[in-house]
Amino acid sequence: MSHDEHWLLLCGGVGGAKLALGLAHELPPGSLTVLVNTGDDFRHLGLWISPDLDTVTYTLAGLVNPATGWGLAGDTFHCLEGLSRLSGPDWFRLGDRDLATHLERTRRLAAGERLGSITSDLASRLGVSARIWPMSDDPVATLLHTDSGLLEFQDYFVRRQAAPVVRAIEYHGASEAGPAPGLANLLKDPGLAGIIIAPSNPWLSIDPILALPGLRQSLADARAPVVAVSPLIAGQAVKGPSAKIMRELGLPPDAQGIARHYLCLLDGFILDDRDEAEAAGIGLLGLETVAAPTLMRSLDDRRSLARVALGLARRLGNSIGRPHRQTG
Amino acid sequence: MSHDEHWLLLCGGVGGAKLALGLAHELPPGSLTVLVNTGDDFRHLGLWISPDLDTVTYTLAGLVNPATGWGLAGDTFHCLEGLSRLSGPDWFRLGDRDLATHLERTRRLAAGERLGSITSDLASRLGVSARIWPMSDDPVATLLHTDSGLLEFQDYFVRRQAAPVVRAIEYHGASEAGPAPGLANLLKDPGLAGIIIAPSNPWLSIDPILALPGLRQSLADARAPVVAVSPLIAGQAVKGPSAKIMRELGLPPDAQGIARHYLCLLDGFILDDRDEAEAAGIGLLGLETVAAPTLMRSLDDRRSLARVALGLARRLGNSIGRPHRQTG
Repeated sequence: MSHDEHWLLLCGGVGGAKLALGLAHELPPGSLTVLVNTGDDFRHLGLWISPDLDTVTYTLAGLVNPATGWGLAGDTFHCLEGLSRLSGPDWFRLGDRDLATHLERTRRLAAGERLGSITSDLASRLGVSARIWPMSDDPVATLLHTDSGLLEFQDYFVRRQAAPVVRAIEYHGASEAGPAPGLANLLKDPGLAGIIIAPSNPWLSIDPILALPGLRQSLADARAPVVAVSPLIAGQAVKGPSAKIMRELGLPPDAQGIARHYLCLLDGFILDDRDEAEAAGIGLLGLETVAAPTLMRSLDDRRSLARVALGLARRLGNSIGRPHRQTG
Repeated sequence: MSHDEHWLLLCGGVGGAKLALGLAHELPPGSLTVLVNTGDDFRHLGLWISPDLDTVTYTLAGLVNPATGWGLAGDTFHCLEGLSRLSGPDWFRLGDRDLATHLERTRRLAAGERLGSITSDLASRLGVSARIWPMSDDPVATLLHTDSGLLEFQDYFVRRQAAPVVRAIEYHGASEAGPAPGLANLLKDPGLAGIIIAPSNPWLSIDPILALPGLRQSLADARAPVVAVSPLIAGQAVKGPSAKIMRELGLPPDAQGIARHYLCLLDGFILDDRDEAEAAGIGLLGLETVAAPTLMRSLDDRRSLARVALGLARRLGNSIGRPHRQTG
């Protein structure tokens, strides 16, 4: 690790990948590390599928399908059509070009290679200069206790379209999983300028990362400031069930609810400017709070939000004394 | 097994599938069983691939790529292009629609289903009325001892394009493999009107079937006449390395060489009419020999050759006394 400035982004899939792209554009090549949720990973048709890793990789490679935010632009679904014809499981949308990633990852995992090494190599072959790290090389499975029983993540999220009511969430395997091999050193690196938590679903995308042994403590101990971006705009998630899950867990679906969820980890917080009225209240929690446009439709939006996050973290990093966050 | 007339075809891939299609058109629906070589089967990218089964299935379903004789008509190769981009193994041509078959077969094998059951179900979903049976539910691997060392079949056949000189051929696992579950009953069935050996490569496609325990004896004991079609025309294989392998094994690459190879099994033999000069010599071996056009370019060619084979077997079946073939 050199003493050049480094940045760490914690993220899930689509929304997080958009901010990752903005950051990659705003930062010098190679100075961004994206730590990606793998709690959504699953085995399907014998393939090891890592949806969030692929979304981040395809997004940073400029290959992502702009209409969906995941999958490859211009991909075809001939294999999936073939599976339907054979009455095979066709509920998970696998594009033909996308399948190559799953086949190759599965092949290399079966050959004994670690997920992080495979991910780095595939990303570099697609021309990505940011480092994309799975949160762990070990399997972690997000499981949902719902009114329809205990559900695996993709069953809940894709097959049932997040309709069941969530009672509790479990990150199976997290307590025995090792965090990404380079992470401990990165968090101690004096060149680490800031840690950003993407506007991903806190329960489904960020908490699986935070559930890894020692990770909350390592983040709390890091000298770099930690800044989170709210995934809610006016009480609604841009995409996905964040607000629905908050209501189901008995939490108010607003920016303050997000800020409180991450409270012990954070120095700064960014909420959408439509939620600016909440800023003062969040400020009272001890967080430096900024309102900004957080809806990322265009690349300019992504870069603009990235600049806000970088700017907030830099201000916090330059502030006298220790950041405000609580430790432990 | 009813007492309706039944027919059994032993075959490999492309050439055998063509005759299977001709027979399927000439026979009542459901009266043809195709026993297919699985010695070419292999695991690739984590998928269980059965090239000959798929070629026969696609051909009988009317879905085969007419340009190659294998794969699906109009298939795309987007996944394979994706694999190339990731520097994955792209030497085996996997079409996108074809991949569905491999994924679904592999998924069902992993779930504990037997290859024969999966094959039947996939074929019926594609509208095939003939029965397609893998020669065995157990894995058998054709291995080639060559001047480039011991090679797995697809490494020899596809990756090295059958260039290495073959010294010997081994059917690994054959002696412990059980023949297709229904085969013993079919061979004993009084309704079995004839057994046809397709113009497939004798060493690479038919011998793996004949290497199964007891299979030669069961064929010899069957009351139904056995007829083979030569895969050579004027000393050349229509497709593949039959003639090259014969030369490498020190055998004359001609119809008589083929007839001698199967001699103890056969009652009748069909050679191409360009090789008619050899017919008398083969007749001296005790085989009823017929010359006919064996090159199958059109469906009419396939049906015409099927009629020749059916006619020869029917004549032999009607002849007084036991067929000519030697037993044991």
